Amino acid sequence: MASEKQERAVHTRESLLLAAAETFDEYGYSGASINRILKRAGLTAGALYFHFDSKEDLARAVMNSQPKTIVPLLDSRGLQRLVDITLTWSRRLQEDPLLRAGVRLTNEQVSFGVQDATPYRSWSGIMADCLRDAHERGELQAGVDPAEVGEFVVEACTGMQMFSAVASGRTDLIERVTRMWRLLLPGIAVPAIVARIEVGPNRVRTSAA
Amino acid sequence: MASEKQERAVHTRESLLLAAAETFDEYGYSGASINRILKRAGLTAGALYFHFDSKEDLARAVMNSQPKTIVPLLDSRGLQRLVDITLTWSRRLQEDPLLRAGVRLTNEQVSFGVQDATPYRSWSGIMADCLRDAHERGELQAGVDPAEVGEFVVEACTGMQMFSAVASGRTDLIERVTRMWRLLLPGIAVPAIVARIEVGPNRVRTSAA
Repeated sequence: MASEKQERAVHTRESLLLAAAETFDEYGYSGASINRILKRAGLTAGALYFHFDSKEDLARAVMNSQPKTIVPLLDSRGLQRLVDITLTWSRRLQEDPLLRAGVRLTNEQVSFGVQDATPYRSWSGIMADCLRDAHERGELQAGVDPAEVGEFVVEACTGMQMFSAVASGRTDLIERVTRMWRLLLPGIAVPAIVARIEVGPNRVRTSAA
Repeated sequence: MASEKQERAVHTRESLLLAAAETFDEYGYSGASINRILKRAGLTAGALYFHFDSKEDLARAVMNSQPKTIVPLLDSRGLQRLVDITLTWSRRLQEDPLLRAGVRLTNEQVSFGVQDATPYRSWSGIMADCLRDAHERGELQAGVDPAEVGEFVVEACTGMQMFSAVASGRTDLIERVTRMWRLLLPGIAVPAIVARIEVGPNRVRTSAA
């Protein structure tokens, strides 16, 4: 019985998170009222306040859900995994409201009084892990620092998403990601790996299949 | 007489732009009312509407004033100029309200219903010009595309500013810019130039002196 109850609680929390993400994605932070979120989730205020303290708390949870919409889809390793994360992210931003709202709230957080570097740091950590794995597999040039490169890739992806959003409604994002790897890989990977890494739209279908 | 009148008009426009920038910087787009801007400028609504159609028009003008707060300060050439632009930008973001409001509005524009890629494109164009100059001076490796690298540097700077704002209130921005050049230069510049380009906080004082 306890586990069934737990399962139901997890399900309720996920429903709230998705409804909040869809509402934040559509109306922005200030336009997304608690009532709108509850209506979309088909749940009561009691259910919401059991799981989240406030609208801000919900927004933080959405911001910090980004990696889990991507990472479980991938089975590649090392540098190829790092490349796949960025390509899958750029494609899924078109279709996944939880990811899209997470990115939007992360970028706009200052305007609603939040200053939370966790989403940037958790992405950086995931990327640094791929780079450490790449180092162990002999894929990196000497002197490449996984933590530094991981943070820089997060910075570049953040900025290319913003440029792409106003320049093309994000339709050119995957090309921008591809360009980044064309510019960065020769400076961080050993030549045999630069030649072998696959970069481009095809990787997304492969890795998400 | 006509030129004195013109001069006064230019001065009024600049006063309005600066007052608007300070108000946007402090209150964000939605909190920056026309009345607040006029009060700060010490000017009438008539003066404002002679120069700008609306608050949105003012915001666009602030967004598009960024390069003029940086570019006139520099006298270096080629890749060194490109590096100096990014270093000076990262320092002046701490102190120049016109630049800071321009960056903030550019990043938040979607939340107030604007979709204007001009600020990203004009920065990219300025950076591509430096890279074309660098190419003519023999500073670039074969196959480096000035327009591509120019856009990528703008993307990376945009994202590092956002990460830095929530991670450190922008105090670590200049180190992030320095890191970018350490990662990028070996992939785009010829070895003699990689060794000669100066990157770091000292460049800012030199180039702004």
